[in-house]
Amino acid sequence: MIDWLDVSRACVRDLEEVLSGLPTRLEREPVLGAGEGGDDTTAIDAAAEGAVVRRLEELGVGLTLVSEEIGVQVIGSGGPPTVVVDPIDGSVNAKRGIPFFSLSLAVADGPTMDDVVFGYVYDFGSREEWAAERGAGASRDGAPLEAPGPKPDIEILALEGTTTDAIAAVASEMRGVAYRLRIMGSLALSLCHLAAGRVDAVCCLKPARSVDIAAAQLLVRERGYAIDLFEDPPFGAAPLDLRQRSRVVAAATDELCAMVAAALT
Amino acid sequence: MIDWLDVSRACVRDLEEVLSGLPTRLEREPVLGAGEGGDDTTAIDAAAEGAVVRRLEELGVGLTLVSEEIGVQVIGSGGPPTVVVDPIDGSVNAKRGIPFFSLSLAVADGPTMDDVVFGYVYDFGSREEWAAERGAGASRDGAPLEAPGPKPDIEILALEGTTTDAIAAVASEMRGVAYRLRIMGSLALSLCHLAAGRVDAVCCLKPARSVDIAAAQLLVRERGYAIDLFEDPPFGAAPLDLRQRSRVVAAATDELCAMVAAALT
Repeated sequence: MIDWLDVSRACVRDLEEVLSGLPTRLEREPVLGAGEGGDDTTAIDAAAEGAVVRRLEELGVGLTLVSEEIGVQVIGSGGPPTVVVDPIDGSVNAKRGIPFFSLSLAVADGPTMDDVVFGYVYDFGSREEWAAERGAGASRDGAPLEAPGPKPDIEILALEGTTTDAIAAVASEMRGVAYRLRIMGSLALSLCHLAAGRVDAVCCLKPARSVDIAAAQLLVRERGYAIDLFEDPPFGAAPLDLRQRSRVVAAATDELCAMVAAALT
Repeated sequence: MIDWLDVSRACVRDLEEVLSGLPTRLEREPVLGAGEGGDDTTAIDAAAEGAVVRRLEELGVGLTLVSEEIGVQVIGSGGPPTVVVDPIDGSVNAKRGIPFFSLSLAVADGPTMDDVVFGYVYDFGSREEWAAERGAGASRDGAPLEAPGPKPDIEILALEGTTTDAIAAVASEMRGVAYRLRIMGSLALSLCHLAAGRVDAVCCLKPARSVDIAAAQLLVRERGYAIDLFEDPPFGAAPLDLRQRSRVVAAATDELCAMVAAALT
């Protein structure tokens, strides 16, 4: 049996070395090409993914890797398990040095979101470690997440997918939905904050990929909160691939998710 | 001579104890009254200010304290110096546990912003320490801030003053100004990020008080960047008090500040 928490922590150490080796945006920002997920692959994205792939290859077991830049890659004899990785979620922050970005790593025993059995998100700013096991709950720094949870009246809505155009298109509609907005720059971390009751709803204004949400969604669902790909339901059937299928919303309840989604449409 | 860096660090230790003693929003959020600065005083605000005031009183020297909740308070025989403190900048984040809030402490040898000789901002999330001395530059964790600085084409604009209403009122106008938005929740930290070239402009959508900006403005200006209270110029003459006089903008140059301000009016 592989201890995926250990593997995740080893990836964090590898990524900290990568970040030290590329200290400023001058080293991190250069664009090397287009990733399989559709976004530009920058120097920091490529180096981070390289480090995580090497770490997974060194396990010496068969698995299927789904990762933003290289796409789907069979390692050894292939999976299961399927390992879904975003080496740097919040690339723009990482490039600029804003200390709010994360490693997102999920492990699944099948091809869909419902098959995710382990989720891990590491915040390189606060150094908080978020983890969940299916059926066994969600934790931060090893301590189970507890009440208080998200507020039933949405005080803070965390928006992701953060171009000014995208914000301008929805800001007015959000006035009746949430009292305050945050735009922090890492969808995985914003979902973890929802799981911990730090924000009351999360919404990504561009269609999300599985790599972005596979790990953090397990924290949200293990806490009993709601998450929806409202343009391509049901959530649990979403394939663990790189297609952008739907915008994502998450909140304490299905009703609150529906209210946020309604403001987007 | 008082070593204000030492005093600031002692305040950080005191505040960390306050935060540990009030671990969740259930303890931090209760409203105790209205502060002199106009906002509600919550349990975390009051406890944090109490800790900082005690620390300053124990110095045994005369000074004038300007702080958000208690207003102007003469300690001993009074100032100079004037010490301008926001014990928790980013109160909403602190209450909710979002790891992006700060202590802001400035020391001045006169009554205006131009008289600020020392500025200190501590990030309780990333644990980064930002400091500046007038004429001696700005630093993070003891290392001088260096290039690369903010981008001349604004990629990231950090907005503060974060109600959904306020964002909705300006988002469309910001489309030609900035490609991306961040709403992180601490004006002092956003200004430090500008000083470090992590964001390219900062704008607070509600009128700022001196307590919010006195420390971080020195980092911005020591780096040679621009900051403006465009509704009540000139910036350097702003009194170190608790009145909300103007919205604030900051960017690499006066021209960029003017462009952001123009989008707000």
